[in-house]
Amino acid sequence: MSIMLEKGYSNTGIQEVLSSLGVPKGSFYHYFDSKENFAVAIIRHFDEEFSGELLRILTNSQETPLRRLRTYGETGKRALLSDECRKGCLIGNLSQEMSDQSEILRKELSIVINKRLGLFTQCIEEGQKLGEITQVASADRLAEHLMCGLSGAVTQAKTLKNIEPMENFIDLMFNHFLKARKTA
Amino acid sequence: MSIMLEKGYSNTGIQEVLSSLGVPKGSFYHYFDSKENFAVAIIRHFDEEFSGELLRILTNSQETPLRRLRTYGETGKRALLSDECRKGCLIGNLSQEMSDQSEILRKELSIVINKRLGLFTQCIEEGQKLGEITQVASADRLAEHLMCGLSGAVTQAKTLKNIEPMENFIDLMFNHFLKARKTA
Repeated sequence: MSIMLEKGYSNTGIQEVLSSLGVPKGSFYHYFDSKENFAVAIIRHFDEEFSGELLRILTNSQETPLRRLRTYGETGKRALLSDECRKGCLIGNLSQEMSDQSEILRKELSIVINKRLGLFTQCIEEGQKLGEITQVASADRLAEHLMCGLSGAVTQAKTLKNIEPMENFIDLMFNHFLKARKTA
Repeated sequence: MSIMLEKGYSNTGIQEVLSSLGVPKGSFYHYFDSKENFAVAIIRHFDEEFSGELLRILTNSQETPLRRLRTYGETGKRALLSDECRKGCLIGNLSQEMSDQSEILRKELSIVINKRLGLFTQCIEEGQKLGEITQVASADRLAEHLMCGLSGAVTQAKTLKNIEPMENFIDLMFNHFLKARKTA
């Protein structure tokens, strides 16, 4: 998972993975019949860890819904910073790299994206009911916008090797665009 | 350019490129000393075509600045649709794939991103002066947000093989978030 997170799918050699673990090739092919299916297992493992953390943040009743979304953004920002604007999110990386290359991986990635969209939608809905989050669009549409923007900001931060696009995104999204407008 | 747009950097074989053009290998190494430098030339070529079109759209005085930005978004949406949500933008694709893999490509991609940011910033500034575009943040920060969101929406459309994330992004960005709020 760690190697694929940093190097992507195509640049990850099975032999490199096995060597780093001291596992013989035969064992690999006992469990996985292809690199694609190995990547599916990695995606599922990554998602399991990630979704647990995401759910914990987005249902934390100590914070308001908008604040929870911001906490998620800040958590991602800190992780990216501590990796010196490298790596980012495995799902975002493989989505970009593999969506046109492998239908098996594309479908697996779609499942994860839709799952995340569901979690964000619930949190945004809650914020809309409380009057904290804007109602210019439905919760699922705002959730999709948030996810697209975040993943784009991560990529831009990686390319510029500068955390600023993440900071800018977090500030604009959570201090302005998602905030319910005060009615006069 | 076309092969790298669809397959990415790592999955593009020089031999495949040469075969598709009927060019012998010796000629390639006469012009390029590595695949990386070949990719730099491809990025510059892509950017030349793309920046010309972007500049034309963003300085079209027949439309208001916000409308021009929207036209750009719609143009991207149509292109993605006609490619059945494949390919996308070479700069976005290589940014995601190669920013951690090649410092040479990362620097080249940063130059293109900063150039685009400059074009968007000018157009947004113009819209802010006209009172058409929100002033919740400076033009360069709104430009960065717009670029991050667009590239994330393209990626999500490619993964879901559905244009909806692009449509949603265009609607929210240009009908709501970037619009100047009417003052009471």
